[in-house]
Amino acid sequence: TDAAAVAAAQARNGQLTKPPGALGRLEELAIWYAGWRGDARPRLEHPQVIVFAGNHGVAARGVSAFPAEVTVQMVANFRAGGAAINQLAKAFGATMDVLALELDRPTADFTQTAAMTEAEVISALAAGWLAVDAAADLLVVGEMGIGNTTPAAAIACALFGGTPGEWTGRGTGVDDKGLSVKTQVVAEGLVTNPDREPLEVLRCLGGREIAAMAGAIARAHHARIPVILDGFICTAAAAVLAQAAEGALDHCIAGHASAEAAHRALLSKLGKQPLLELGLRLGEGSGAALAIGVLKGAVACHSGMATFAEAGVSDA
Amino acid sequence: TDAAAVAAAQARNGQLTKPPGALGRLEELAIWYAGWRGDARPRLEHPQVIVFAGNHGVAARGVSAFPAEVTVQMVANFRAGGAAINQLAKAFGATMDVLALELDRPTADFTQTAAMTEAEVISALAAGWLAVDAAADLLVVGEMGIGNTTPAAAIACALFGGTPGEWTGRGTGVDDKGLSVKTQVVAEGLVTNPDREPLEVLRCLGGREIAAMAGAIARAHHARIPVILDGFICTAAAAVLAQAAEGALDHCIAGHASAEAAHRALLSKLGKQPLLELGLRLGEGSGAALAIGVLKGAVACHSGMATFAEAGVSDA
Repeated sequence: TDAAAVAAAQARNGQLTKPPGALGRLEELAIWYAGWRGDARPRLEHPQVIVFAGNHGVAARGVSAFPAEVTVQMVANFRAGGAAINQLAKAFGATMDVLALELDRPTADFTQTAAMTEAEVISALAAGWLAVDAAADLLVVGEMGIGNTTPAAAIACALFGGTPGEWTGRGTGVDDKGLSVKTQVVAEGLVTNPDREPLEVLRCLGGREIAAMAGAIARAHHARIPVILDGFICTAAAAVLAQAAEGALDHCIAGHASAEAAHRALLSKLGKQPLLELGLRLGEGSGAALAIGVLKGAVACHSGMATFAEAGVSDA
Repeated sequence: TDAAAVAAAQARNGQLTKPPGALGRLEELAIWYAGWRGDARPRLEHPQVIVFAGNHGVAARGVSAFPAEVTVQMVANFRAGGAAINQLAKAFGATMDVLALELDRPTADFTQTAAMTEAEVISALAAGWLAVDAAADLLVVGEMGIGNTTPAAAIACALFGGTPGEWTGRGTGVDDKGLSVKTQVVAEGLVTNPDREPLEVLRCLGGREIAAMAGAIARAHHARIPVILDGFICTAAAAVLAQAAEGALDHCIAGHASAEAAHRALLSKLGKQPLLELGLRLGEGSGAALAIGVLKGAVACHSGMATFAEAGVSDA
C-alpha cells in the first residue's frame, strides 16, 4: 500500500461534508482502496470477476448433494450468462471470465494420496496468476467445483488446527449422513497428508480452482489490485497465502460471511470482518460481487463529495 | 402485495440454477419485491431518492453538535451534487429530489408547545405524498435537519414507551453534556405533549421533514412502490405509520442498522431486520441508498438467471 496516498486520503476524508466518522466503514474502505491504488481520490470503474472451475476426487466419496457432472454443466451456464454470478457481475459493472481447469481430470482422492502433483498445482496457480487483467481496478475470484467445501475444510483444518468437525459444514446442502461422511473424509485426508507447510497443504488437500484463486489473489497483490474475498472456499485459498507470507492479504477485504458454518471462524483467523451477512452459500464469487456495490459506494462518496470549504458548509 | 405474483416468483425461485436457498436473503428480497410490483419476474430500474429538509425549534436547546444554519447549507450542497447521498444515488442509478420545507420557519420547541399546528403537519405530509414519482419502482426517503434525532427519539419513546434515555443517542456527535441535555429535552417534550395517538405524536413531537417522509412512505404503499428505510429518523417517521395502521410498512425493508444507538431497537419494534450494518450515522438516505445495490443484485439474480431446465443442469 502507498503510505502517501493513505495519508492524503485520510486528510481528504476529514474535510468532506459530513460529521467525522458518519460514513462508518465506508470511510475505512475508501482510504484502504486509495492506498492500494496509490491515488488519494481514486475511481473504481473496472472490476473483474473470474470464476475458476475444477473437479475433485473426493466427490466420488459422496460429500456433496449434487453429482460431479454439475461442475461442467454450470461452466456452460456461466458461459451462456445464466448463473447468479453473471447477473451480479452485470449489475455491478464487472467483466467476467470463466476458467475451467481440466474438468475431465479430477484431482486425486486426498484420502488416498496427494490431491495434486507439483506440476499440477503449479499449473493451476499459474492459470490463476495469468487470468488477472492488469488493467482491472478490483478483483473478485469465485469458484465452481462439486465437492469443494471438503478440500476447503481440510485446508482450514491443516492450517489452523482444531477438529475436522469444526471446519466442515453442509455446503450446497448435504444431510446429516453426508455431513458425517464429509467430516470423516477430511479426517482421513489430514492423516494421509501430514505436511503442514502452506503450499504443500494446498497441493495435497486443495484443488485446481482453489490453487487458481490463490494464484490470482497473489497476482493482484503484485499488481496493487484490491480483492474482495468471497465465501468459505475462496477464503480457504486466501488463507494459504496468509500462512505462507505475512501481509499477503493486506489487499483483500471480506465481502461477506456466508451461511457455511466455518466461514466466519476462518475469516476471524485471517482478521477479516465481513461487509455483508445475508445468508448466501452459493460460491461463484456471488457474495463478493454483491459487495462490489458497497465498495463502489464508499469510493464514490470519498472521491465525489464536496469539502466543507467547497460547499460553504459550517464545520462542527 | 400481489399473492399471485408472490406464488409465481416463489415457483420461479425454486427452478433457478442454484441449490435451494443458496442466495439466502436475496431470495426473500426478490420474492417480496415481485409481490409489490405485481410481476413474478420484475426489473428494478427507476429508483427515486427524495431528501426532505426541515428545521427544529429544539435545535436552539443545544441538542446537536452542529449549528442550525447547516440545514440550509446542506440543502445547497445536495442541489450542487456535493453530498454523500448525491454520490450514492448516482452510483446506484437513482434519481434524486430535494425538498426544503420552510427552513426559515423552524418547528416550535416541543418542550413548550406542539412542534406543529394541524395545518403545518398536513402540509408536510402532503409535500411528502406529492414528491413521490408514480413511475418509480423503488423509493428511498432521507432527511436533513439539524437536531432531528431529538424529535425522532421523542416519537419513538411516545410510540413504544421506555425511558427517554433508551431512545436518545449521540446523533452527529454530541458529547456527554449534549446527550444529557438531549435526553432532558425529550423528557420535557413528552410531558408537554401527552397525546399518544400516532398522528398526534407526529404533529406534536415530529418535524416537517419527518412528516414528509411519512407522507412519502404512505404514498409509496398506495402506489405499490417498495421502500428501503434509512436510519433512525426515517425509521421513526415510518413507525408513526406502523402504529397508525396495521401492515402500513409491509412494502418497506430496513436498508441498514445505523450507529445511532436506538435504531436497532426501533427496527426491532417494527419487526424489520436490517440488510446492512456498516456503522453509518449520516442520514440523508445514505444507508438506504447503499442497500439499493443489494436489492438490485437480488432482483437481477431472480429475474435474470436460467432455470435448471433452460441451462441443462442436473438438479440435486
